[in-house]
Amino acid sequence: MSSNSFGQILTMTTFGESHGAALGVVVDGCPSGIALSEDDLLVQLKRRRPGQSSITTSRVETDEPEILSGVFEGKTTGMPIAVLVRNVNQRSQDYEILRDHPRPGHADEVYSQKYSHRDHRGGGRSSGRETLARVIAGVVAKKILPKELLVVGHCLQVGPHRAQTFDPAVIEDNDVRCADAVAAKRMISYIEDLRDGHNSSGGLIEILIKNAPQGLGDPVFGKLKARLADAVLSVGAVTGFSYGIGFDAATQTGKEYIADRKNFGGILGGISTGEDIVLRASIKPTSSIEQTAKTGRHDPCIVPRVIPVLEAMATFVLADAYLHSKTQ
Amino acid sequence: MSSNSFGQILTMTTFGESHGAALGVVVDGCPSGIALSEDDLLVQLKRRRPGQSSITTSRVETDEPEILSGVFEGKTTGMPIAVLVRNVNQRSQDYEILRDHPRPGHADEVYSQKYSHRDHRGGGRSSGRETLARVIAGVVAKKILPKELLVVGHCLQVGPHRAQTFDPAVIEDNDVRCADAVAAKRMISYIEDLRDGHNSSGGLIEILIKNAPQGLGDPVFGKLKARLADAVLSVGAVTGFSYGIGFDAATQTGKEYIADRKNFGGILGGISTGEDIVLRASIKPTSSIEQTAKTGRHDPCIVPRVIPVLEAMATFVLADAYLHSKTQ
Amino acid sequence: MSSNSFGQILTMTTFGESHGAALGVVVDGCPSGIALSEDDLLVQLKRRRPGQSSITTSRVETDEPEILSGVFEGKTTGMPIAVLVRNVNQRSQDYEILRDHPRPGHADEVYSQKYSHRDHRGGGRSSGRETLARVIAGVVAKKILPKELLVVGHCLQVGPHRAQTFDPAVIEDNDVRCADAVAAKRMISYIEDLRDGHNSSGGLIEILIKNAPQGLGDPVFGKLKARLADAVLSVGAVTGFSYGIGFDAATQTGKEYIADRKNFGGILGGISTGEDIVLRASIKPTSSIEQTAKTGRHDPCIVPRVIPVLEAMATFVLADAYLHSKTQ
Amino acid sequence: MSSNSFGQILTMTTFGESHGAALGVVVDGCPSGIALSEDDLLVQLKRRRPGQSSITTSRVETDEPEILSGVFEGKTTGMPIAVLVRNVNQRSQDYEILRDHPRPGHADEVYSQKYSHRDHRGGGRSSGRETLARVIAGVVAKKILPKELLVVGHCLQVGPHRAQTFDPAVIEDNDVRCADAVAAKRMISYIEDLRDGHNSSGGLIEILIKNAPQGLGDPVFGKLKARLADAVLSVGAVTGFSYGIGFDAATQTGKEYIADRKNFGGILGGISTGEDIVLRASIKPTSSIEQTAKTGRHDPCIVPRVIPVLEAMATFVLADAYLHSKTQ
Repeated sequence: MSSNSFGQILTMTTFGESHGAALGVVVDGCPSGIALSEDDLLVQLKRRRPGQSSITTSRVETDEPEILSGVFEGKTTGMPIAVLVRNVNQRSQDYEILRDHPRPGHADEVYSQKYSHRDHRGGGRSSGRETLARVIAGVVAKKILPKELLVVGHCLQVGPHRAQTFDPAVIEDNDVRCADAVAAKRMISYIEDLRDGHNSSGGLIEILIKNAPQGLGDPVFGKLKARLADAVLSVGAVTGFSYGIGFDAATQTGKEYIADRKNFGGILGGISTGEDIVLRASIKPTSSIEQTAKTGRHDPCIVPRVIPVLEAMATFVLADAYLHSKTQ
Repeated sequence: MSSNSFGQILTMTTFGESHGAALGVVVDGCPSGIALSEDDLLVQLKRRRPGQSSITTSRVETDEPEILSGVFEGKTTGMPIAVLVRNVNQRSQDYEILRDHPRPGHADEVYSQKYSHRDHRGGGRSSGRETLARVIAGVVAKKILPKELLVVGHCLQVGPHRAQTFDPAVIEDNDVRCADAVAAKRMISYIEDLRDGHNSSGGLIEILIKNAPQGLGDPVFGKLKARLADAVLSVGAVTGFSYGIGFDAATQTGKEYIADRKNFGGILGGISTGEDIVLRASIKPTSSIEQTAKTGRHDPCIVPRVIPVLEAMATFVLADAYLHSKTQ
Repeated sequence: MSSNSFGQILTMTTFGESHGAALGVVVDGCPSGIALSEDDLLVQLKRRRPGQSSITTSRVETDEPEILSGVFEGKTTGMPIAVLVRNVNQRSQDYEILRDHPRPGHADEVYSQKYSHRDHRGGGRSSGRETLARVIAGVVAKKILPKELLVVGHCLQVGPHRAQTFDPAVIEDNDVRCADAVAAKRMISYIEDLRDGHNSSGGLIEILIKNAPQGLGDPVFGKLKARLADAVLSVGAVTGFSYGIGFDAATQTGKEYIADRKNFGGILGGISTGEDIVLRASIKPTSSIEQTAKTGRHDPCIVPRVIPVLEAMATFVLADAYLHSKTQ
Repeated sequence: MSSNSFGQILTMTTFGESHGAALGVVVDGCPSGIALSEDDLLVQLKRRRPGQSSITTSRVETDEPEILSGVFEGKTTGMPIAVLVRNVNQRSQDYEILRDHPRPGHADEVYSQKYSHRDHRGGGRSSGRETLARVIAGVVAKKILPKELLVVGHCLQVGPHRAQTFDPAVIEDNDVRCADAVAAKRMISYIEDLRDGHNSSGGLIEILIKNAPQGLGDPVFGKLKARLADAVLSVGAVTGFSYGIGFDAATQTGKEYIADRKNFGGILGGISTGEDIVLRASIKPTSSIEQTAKTGRHDPCIVPRVIPVLEAMATFVLADAYLHSKTQ
């Protein structure tokens, strides 16, 4: 199995470096007859794109996706769907200093050791830019699943500021993608201050999945929670994953645990129950603050841009499990 | 890919129900010439076995492993290693009531929905007993890795009681497998009280990996942290996974994060750095308290018995990545 | 992917050496609710078993299968189906001479080079005895497919003797499994003569598949013909595979080829058409004639015993493709 | 596992339709530090390209490959190597008639049944044009293997004309890629006559592999012969595969078989011996003769163009097995 592929029946294979010619993805296993266009992809890519607000990097990436295959007359054909995004505005010269100066907390040093010959520009494959391929794959995955399924990601916490209310309608209205408009303001102000001090912040993301079909996932190694953990931890900035009661389980008693089905997180025995699935992911603060702060080419808080990536990965896992369930 | 297989180059395929004829595992991809015996397996199986203390189930499982294949004259041959453990003391009749009464917080209900025809006795495949197959696979995996590698699991927290010191020498000396002898006493007393009240407790496990080779894992989907998350969440009782700074990343700034390499958890860009790898897993309280409490056939705190399972799964991931790294 | 596993959604993992404790197979991905018993397995295992006639080895293997898991109250549960066959009558001492004397035309020498430490007794994993695991998996596969599907293998040729007629009713009535009763007699007499001269014969097997569902297989790498070729060549004695017109295509013109749909062999563009699928496999003569001839422990013509193995492998490929087609 | 991916450790994932925007391939698992350029690819692509002689289609395809990723400063980085070939000269309108008129002996009809929505232009994914992706992957694979390894394909037979001598130096000097210059002339003349009669011819290809490392392949399901059969049959025009003595085994005795190691075909017990590996593939005559003959857009004999594709597929299998052998 390729280390750049993900999924069992529905698979994505991603390729490309942040400062090479292009990035892209091949999604295979998608049934035929599903409407798909570049516009569908743009909606989600735009959510991941940098340069959108005061709290994300000022880099501009246009991210124009081109569907190369697998779609004919506006519908999928059952053949592999390849999508290409050309790199523009690469400014590789900004990164020349990184050739011999690996960044602390970055993959640079381990890449050099493991591969000897590496692409030092902008992190190469370890760049967050690779995740646009995941977002594309997530759009395809979403279309495979029942229409009523909803995947909603939001920022639960940034530094000391935690959301106190949950209003999904406001998530896309604030730069940090928080479902609590009041907390959002505090989060943004906190991030702006850190940015001005050449610093950055970590955070917490919650992914809420509503109307997931019952019966997704398998009892032992294909547990839905394990596939989701794999998917979520495959994103660079993520340092932790939990579902349902999560780490608070440590201090619970059994009676408390079974008293509220919300603790189960919509998954029992590795299999979806049909109830809401709730996932959380902890996000580390951007570590490339020292060298790149002067150029403005980093995100003082990556949380809002990671949200669509985690939504995409979770959706992909569900779609793969959904197709698998048809064989069982 | 089978939902009962795990791994890429080194694979384990597990089978068997808790109340069927036997459980077992086929480990494939192990190089030839490695000494392996049933005694090696027994050492670890004994650590996972129930009935060992006041805070685990009183069920007695003898767990006698038989190596069926892949070992000749005391050494591995490069062929698949099949190990069988017969079930004894099954007392299936104890579970007859479960045929039509699924337990809350258990896989029973989702199994019935997904598979229609299911084995209701003792959870079938969702039983914790399946994990003995993982422990066996972990023993094989350990022997593939460099001798100096150490994988040490311990109980970090139970209910309100958290370990304050770390002395690996005392871990196996107390029933809860805590590296802080003083905290261990409090944890055990806490669990005993819950047990007497037909209740149970969750907890927190830490897995410390010392002397892991540099360069294990891959940049995108084979990230070491993602494979470890998949492995850890594939264990039934686990509700969360983190590495390094974990969920505390949410409140850190970038300057704090890069100031201490311990935050990186021994993994950068998805690849091991050669430093200590530190993982944490949250464990939910046993939920089968109501129906089975009277028979004493449940664990009031599963943490000590999950520790060798998580050690095994983490070791397996490392061995698989280690073999993969030889091709890169 | 394990080198001892086969299949994508429906998988089999086989284990065991001919002179170890046992052989076995884990079949995973079988849907729940399918009736399965040891008697079902015995019917097919008996067809593969040696010691049945003058033209097969006189070794007696009882091959008593035990279903260890995945079946409850007579029906599959959707969990992995493990089946064990203990080895008896191993007479390992007969093979002691092989420890340092690899047999010509056998895997012995390459095993020694590749694995250093090997099980020399009876070929270890390269023994034809491993194929009983395939036969078991084939029985499970057959039950997944539509009932009307038929897989009929027969001996087309042995040495200079070729079947001239096709009467499926006589196949199981003669020791060589030929569908032409007259040719069968000549084949058997030919083999008996070779056996008396401490020699052996190759042959040709045809597998006819009737009523296969339309639409099995995929356009590029999952072509049904490629999966079948992989399956057929995974059997030790097979030296060639063809379907439809096969090697006679070399001398055909396009007009001749398209004039008769039988030339297509029931597969177009890699996908089954719903018409009869016809496969052929060439079988090499048993090469272990010199050392083992005196003990009578070899088959002067392995063709009749390979037939149920190829039927099983072809059936398995079809069942795997059938399950896959449900996701497309 | 994706139906458009091939390989275990070294994988290729191909995408694209013959009349879509582009075709391409992602090769993953290639070690870092290997020199690779578009020129390397062009050498082999040119051999597969149509429009080169009187006996191939007159279509002109320029096939300009662009390496999108995985190569930096002229060397592989260990990251996935994506290569894109844009389609030009598509003339899709030539195929408009095929929308509702599937061609006999073609995948058209089964595609329609299986996928409902299909790309009818030029066969879509079932087009021979997809094989340029294989040729690209083969170039990468070749560079992974020891330098001394040679893979030489040649045309053994066309219609009634069979090569009588073997002079590798002349293979690329004649349009049919035959190693017997005299037979080549007869073959070409035979094909030209068929072409003039709106007809086509099948043929036989032999692939000779010299200096393959010992020990490639695995004993049971990863047998080198099985992987090669899968690879060879994954090419559209192939109707049969054999190695070593092949189908002539049917008429051999055991004494004859073991008397000449050439019969073993360089593979014993599924594992390479280090001796010459000899494969044969039967090729069906082009079936799209009726509708496309008038436009000259078909190959009256596809054999010479399939040769580099089979070389590539065989090389890929060897490179994958070579990387796998490093873990054993």
